[in-house]
Amino acid sequence: MRIHMIQIDGALQRGLSLLTAVCAAKTGISPSELASRTGLPTSSVYRLLKQLDTAGFVRKSAPGCYVPVPGFLSLTQDIDRNAILRDLARPAIFRLARKTGLTAHLGILENGMVTYVIRVAARANDSASFTREGGQLEAYCSAVGKVLLSNLPEDDLNEYLSDGEFVPLTDNTITNAGQLQQEIATARTQGFALDNFEVSEDLFCVSVPVGPQPADQNCAISVSSSRSARIYEAPESVLDDLRATAAEIASRIAGPVEVQTGNL
Amino acid sequence: MRIHMIQIDGALQRGLSLLTAVCAAKTGISPSELASRTGLPTSSVYRLLKQLDTAGFVRKSAPGCYVPVPGFLSLTQDIDRNAILRDLARPAIFRLARKTGLTAHLGILENGMVTYVIRVAARANDSASFTREGGQLEAYCSAVGKVLLSNLPEDDLNEYLSDGEFVPLTDNTITNAGQLQQEIATARTQGFALDNFEVSEDLFCVSVPVGPQPADQNCAISVSSSRSARIYEAPESVLDDLRATAAEIASRIAGPVEVQTGNL
Repeated sequence: MRIHMIQIDGALQRGLSLLTAVCAAKTGISPSELASRTGLPTSSVYRLLKQLDTAGFVRKSAPGCYVPVPGFLSLTQDIDRNAILRDLARPAIFRLARKTGLTAHLGILENGMVTYVIRVAARANDSASFTREGGQLEAYCSAVGKVLLSNLPEDDLNEYLSDGEFVPLTDNTITNAGQLQQEIATARTQGFALDNFEVSEDLFCVSVPVGPQPADQNCAISVSSSRSARIYEAPESVLDDLRATAAEIASRIAGPVEVQTGNL
Repeated sequence: MRIHMIQIDGALQRGLSLLTAVCAAKTGISPSELASRTGLPTSSVYRLLKQLDTAGFVRKSAPGCYVPVPGFLSLTQDIDRNAILRDLARPAIFRLARKTGLTAHLGILENGMVTYVIRVAARANDSASFTREGGQLEAYCSAVGKVLLSNLPEDDLNEYLSDGEFVPLTDNTITNAGQLQQEIATARTQGFALDNFEVSEDLFCVSVPVGPQPADQNCAISVSSSRSARIYEAPESVLDDLRATAAEIASRIAGPVEVQTGNL
């Protein structure tokens, strides 16, 4: 009975492994290549492909390759990914806010602006942050923005830097593209970024990436404080908590990976 | 041994059925609702969800619901859907061109224009069509365009009609928004549309929808002829071939459907 259950479980895992490999191939993949990528025998690949075809997930295309079915791709298309990200990451952001006593955020990059998907204040009426969920801030002066920019492909970052007019919001705002480029390079190297009172005279912020992840999942988390909380004197003190939270969120939002399943 | 195989097959089908139901729910769905939608016992739902979670396809979100994993949605995102559509539909379009002796197309609507994803000429140097694969034509004067417009939600169609400046390309081009609206309504009712020499003095075209499909898969097929082929005298004569081809393509691109699998 126990062996029986393991075999049944294995069929679903093998099928999902094949589905992952077909999607990862992007443009069609042959059964023999699928066998090589998944580690499954070619005979199993054919049998599982037939089932994935019947279920409407993959289909044989003209050149004898297998592709994901357009109707399956449509099914995954108009899903509100920000809402899902918010639901999956909120418990971890909540714990981060409670543990640090600071306002915690999760943000993503949308059209060169940071969108705050989650905001949790440790205390009601926290003066440390005027952000709201769904609201946006400029990327160049926020800690989350600098981390997200540092995750961009080089071409996209250069386009952002050359397009931008970097308006000063405080005396500390970096308004020079070269200096901003340097700041973003530093964020990439050290794995965190600061907003050193660059958005507001009373807002200091430390951010780390949620990653590694593909660019289309580019998100970052942060904690913010007012000047009175004096985090700015030792921003490194919150890095461990930020990084633990980022790792937890990364594992929550990570999707299927193309791995050898072995000859199960 | 035979029974064993059927059981293994069932596990994959049940898992895929659950995955379909989770994606179709869009915003998170509870195990009991999943049991009701798929017809699976709740205990099976929990066991299969755990496997889909391990594989990186679905995950439990904060409110006790299950959601598709962002990383899985990313996996399906940057796939070239037009390339897949082209590969899956080309054999049917090729047979349509050969059977009718006309130039056959498959087109989709992109930003108010028709993009021709497939073009197959029955004869080399066919004067009946100056289209090329990947090329675009205005929607308001082409048969494929009228069918695609007739598939749009009412609001989107009204926006198209009110935005447009309908430039005459021949004496037959419909340039009046009200008249065009009437033409599109007729296309919806009768299930086909004509281009009655509206793009070019020597191009007649008959188009039918590939459907039913969700709006984001909106595509149509057509056959075109020059004036000398005299198809314009009896456009209904090609409708059976067009509709058979459309049905074949529709079944090739259809994805998973949310159905009761029964207690397999």
